[in-house]
Amino acid sequence: MSEAAEPAARRGRPGYDQATVLRRAIELFNRQGYDGTSMGDLAAELGLSKSAIYHHVPSKSHLLEQALHEALDELTTLVETAVDESTGTAYERLREVVRESVRVLVAHQDAVTLLLRVRGNGEVEQEALARRRWIDARLAELVAAAVEEGALRADVAPDLVSRLLFGMVNSLVEWYRPGGAVDTDVLSHAITTIAFDGLAAHRA
Amino acid sequence: MSEAAEPAARRGRPGYDQATVLRRAIELFNRQGYDGTSMGDLAAELGLSKSAIYHHVPSKSHLLEQALHEALDELTTLVETAVDESTGTAYERLREVVRESVRVLVAHQDAVTLLLRVRGNGEVEQEALARRRWIDARLAELVAAAVEEGALRADVAPDLVSRLLFGMVNSLVEWYRPGGAVDTDVLSHAITTIAFDGLAAHRA
Repeated sequence: MSEAAEPAARRGRPGYDQATVLRRAIELFNRQGYDGTSMGDLAAELGLSKSAIYHHVPSKSHLLEQALHEALDELTTLVETAVDESTGTAYERLREVVRESVRVLVAHQDAVTLLLRVRGNGEVEQEALARRRWIDARLAELVAAAVEEGALRADVAPDLVSRLLFGMVNSLVEWYRPGGAVDTDVLSHAITTIAFDGLAAHRA
Repeated sequence: MSEAAEPAARRGRPGYDQATVLRRAIELFNRQGYDGTSMGDLAAELGLSKSAIYHHVPSKSHLLEQALHEALDELTTLVETAVDESTGTAYERLREVVRESVRVLVAHQDAVTLLLRVRGNGEVEQEALARRRWIDARLAELVAAAVEEGALRADVAPDLVSRLLFGMVNSLVEWYRPGGAVDTDVLSHAITTIAFDGLAAHRA
């Protein structure tokens, strides 16, 4: 496709493709808060003038929407797979969705960090919160189904298990550094082991 | 003590004692970010003029410092107790510090929420991060000691266990509501059970 044939808002200026603009915007939102970031700040970050930034992105909320979709789309697909009863027992599907959600969080760490800070200001954030609630509800149902099967202990309420389990998973965005001492497989093994098998040696 | 004898900066104006000013400031910092909150915003929140607010607090960073001390002081005391080898095995002390840290997080939830968002801008935040690192290092050592004792499984690195364990504990500030469906004892039982004994029924 020739450069002229592609709309300017989607194409980006030389040196900045759309993926780069989004990545830099997410980093900036995480650093100084979405509400505390202006289009002027983003332009400065990219070394562009305040008017040139609008050749790259129509609005700040458009970037937020793209970032939150990046964070949510794969997680949603994972959860859809996890609730499909034809793919295994509830216990197996829960363990798999925990393991896989670690992979997705690491792959989209900055976008997920932004998602976890969303408090519901405006339509874009409200939509993201609604999608998080849908995910949380499906995961709590999956925990309940695994308890029902007899595979999970019944003395902790499924809602609470679900919150704490994914609280542990989500906490990795605060400190995990890709390419650091801990690789993704080690990390997802550690999380599933702690959560399902426990830390105590006599239970291993 | 007569009103005149007490310094104005410590006393507070009628209707606002120092504890109330601090609590409202912490709420505001959590809602709109510390950097995004001015002394004028805090004055407006309290229904005071911009000049009257300085009768209550000398500066915004003074409030931040008090808030971070509130979050850190009891946790530090807990960890000091936990590293005292005379009080039990490393396993017992680790389990106890997990249980007790839930109680402290619930009691100081807003201050801890603020602490967990601190990124190290300025001296007050740097000091808080240094205190967090001290706590994290002692907890990782305690995990290592419990592995050494043979009480904790050895196939997950102590640093990683410590991060994930307290990642799960810290995650409660995102959703826990005192007086809601889950009481503090149920919550700390759930966290210690999941972490040490695991969710799987056949291990219970």
